[in-house]
Amino acid sequence: MTEGARLFQALRNGDRASLARAITLVESTRPQDAASAAELVRLSLAHAGRSVRIGITGIPGAGKSTLIEAAGSELLRLGKRLAVLAIDPSSARSGGSILGDKTRMERLSRSDAVFIRPSPTAGVLGGVGRRTRETILLCEAAGYDRVLIETVGTGQNELAVDRMTDLNVVLAIGGAGDELQGIKRGIMESADIIALNKTDGVQATLNQRAATDLRLAIHLLPPREHGERAQVLLCSAQDGTGITDLVAAIEGLAEKLERNGATQARRGSQNGWWLHEAISERLLQDLFALPAVRQAMPRIEEDVRQGRRSPFDAADELVRLFRTASGPPREG
Amino acid sequence: MTEGARLFQALRNGDRASLARAITLVESTRPQDAASAAELVRLSLAHAGRSVRIGITGIPGAGKSTLIEAAGSELLRLGKRLAVLAIDPSSARSGGSILGDKTRMERLSRSDAVFIRPSPTAGVLGGVGRRTRETILLCEAAGYDRVLIETVGTGQNELAVDRMTDLNVVLAIGGAGDELQGIKRGIMESADIIALNKTDGVQATLNQRAATDLRLAIHLLPPREHGERAQVLLCSAQDGTGITDLVAAIEGLAEKLERNGATQARRGSQNGWWLHEAISERLLQDLFALPAVRQAMPRIEEDVRQGRRSPFDAADELVRLFRTASGPPREG
Repeated sequence: MTEGARLFQALRNGDRASLARAITLVESTRPQDAASAAELVRLSLAHAGRSVRIGITGIPGAGKSTLIEAAGSELLRLGKRLAVLAIDPSSARSGGSILGDKTRMERLSRSDAVFIRPSPTAGVLGGVGRRTRETILLCEAAGYDRVLIETVGTGQNELAVDRMTDLNVVLAIGGAGDELQGIKRGIMESADIIALNKTDGVQATLNQRAATDLRLAIHLLPPREHGERAQVLLCSAQDGTGITDLVAAIEGLAEKLERNGATQARRGSQNGWWLHEAISERLLQDLFALPAVRQAMPRIEEDVRQGRRSPFDAADELVRLFRTASGPPREG
Repeated sequence: MTEGARLFQALRNGDRASLARAITLVESTRPQDAASAAELVRLSLAHAGRSVRIGITGIPGAGKSTLIEAAGSELLRLGKRLAVLAIDPSSARSGGSILGDKTRMERLSRSDAVFIRPSPTAGVLGGVGRRTRETILLCEAAGYDRVLIETVGTGQNELAVDRMTDLNVVLAIGGAGDELQGIKRGIMESADIIALNKTDGVQATLNQRAATDLRLAIHLLPPREHGERAQVLLCSAQDGTGITDLVAAIEGLAEKLERNGATQARRGSQNGWWLHEAISERLLQDLFALPAVRQAMPRIEEDVRQGRRSPFDAADELVRLFRTASGPPREG
């Protein structure tokens, strides 16, 4: 029995330490771990898919950890089992704020029905995608039925997260001026629920005005692909205001999207998207691994960027270099 | 001298028929035209880049052709030479509305300083990209200093157009309800100027209200990458109201973005994006040309979409099939 198969059995039996080790295995970049990791994912797939995958994004300071602590506790009260995957793009540089997060999620981290896991990104989008997606599958196979994928909102991050979640919650804070703190360009595209957090004290008035403006803005735009418009909710993770409503909104939307087939359709297109993305990424890796290509690339890219050379013509040359080096295709 | 070099000389001398033939050459999919087309583009590149590239999008019925006729006439009055490239995604199916457009652009099509060209798309995004981009270069080499790229707004189209323009004008119409007619999801990401057209008669009040709401919505969001927020303007292409202001806004913004280096930076990233896109497209074409891959793909894709198989694992198999068929890479 491979290490992957052993870990699979243990995580199915509810062993959290094995789930943690299983995730480390799929995160491994060592070639000798690849077969075992692939088997682990293959075995898990048959037991995956039975969770609600929820994206939680927001700028630093929007109160993500405190909100996850509050909303997560409410989910536990409803009898859910909760996995929290934190994608921290800064972790590669700074060592991350993992410890800080665990401290701020004190209640959650004490519960047996909660599994918290930071997901290092090392700055590679493809890497984030694969590892986080496979981690979701493992958590589902281990019986967690709510998976929160938490990330810092940057505009780019939300897009990657949107490609693996069923629905997304964006945290924002009303600003003193017109602008919303924490709403990045592109966010309106992926948000299902916008939670205006820190609605307490002096911030309450600002948030109430922001909510009115935001609802108007949302109604100018057509609904999301699944037919629903983003909801705007006010809450305070600190004092608990609006948290029950927020969780009810998440649960209600998840149920609706599940019932009308939107979640199934969405997961199907997400899978198709990742397949094409993964193929393309592997082919590009092969191409850029060739010394001839690596050597020619900086000059070619500079010529293209400066408008001295057509990108299509340059692509032709690079692919020609690749074909020459790989030999002519034989009929399979 | 190749056909490409001959056409290049003629178009540089201002021969419009040669420009039209040059565009037909770069649009050709016949293998025997490839070398000549590549030389034509290569020669043109040295004389390209000296135009303002303006995207014009809007749903059918937003009044795109009438607006281009009106704004184009104003550009002529300012002494500009104008190329209008119409990307019509329906043309592959219906034969397009090319004749209709030319009729609605009657004044423009009579002017010697205007070149109008429909760009068939045949439904291939990569195709649209390459052909339209190369057509822009040819028009610039032929001395046109304003290039309008017109397309029907679908959400997808705008993204492709946004990757080849310096700035984008979106046409919309205020609706009877909350919603704006013609504003698609994703549009807020790429619009520099939102022109509420048909601001005459009963539509005027609706447009004025829509403008107020839209300006508020825009101020909730951060500015575009180049630092400017989208402007909202009212106009009526039919009776000419607001057209001078619209053209002044386009010209003013183009000058500002040129002066502060935003246009140069934007074109650099666009070129880099097309290079990577073109490489990836060519590699995928090679992969999907292999009989073994073509045969395996439908089953694999279905398994992935249904969640029965990991997209990454499936991508590994497909790329392995490709490598086996192409032989092991040799060191270049």
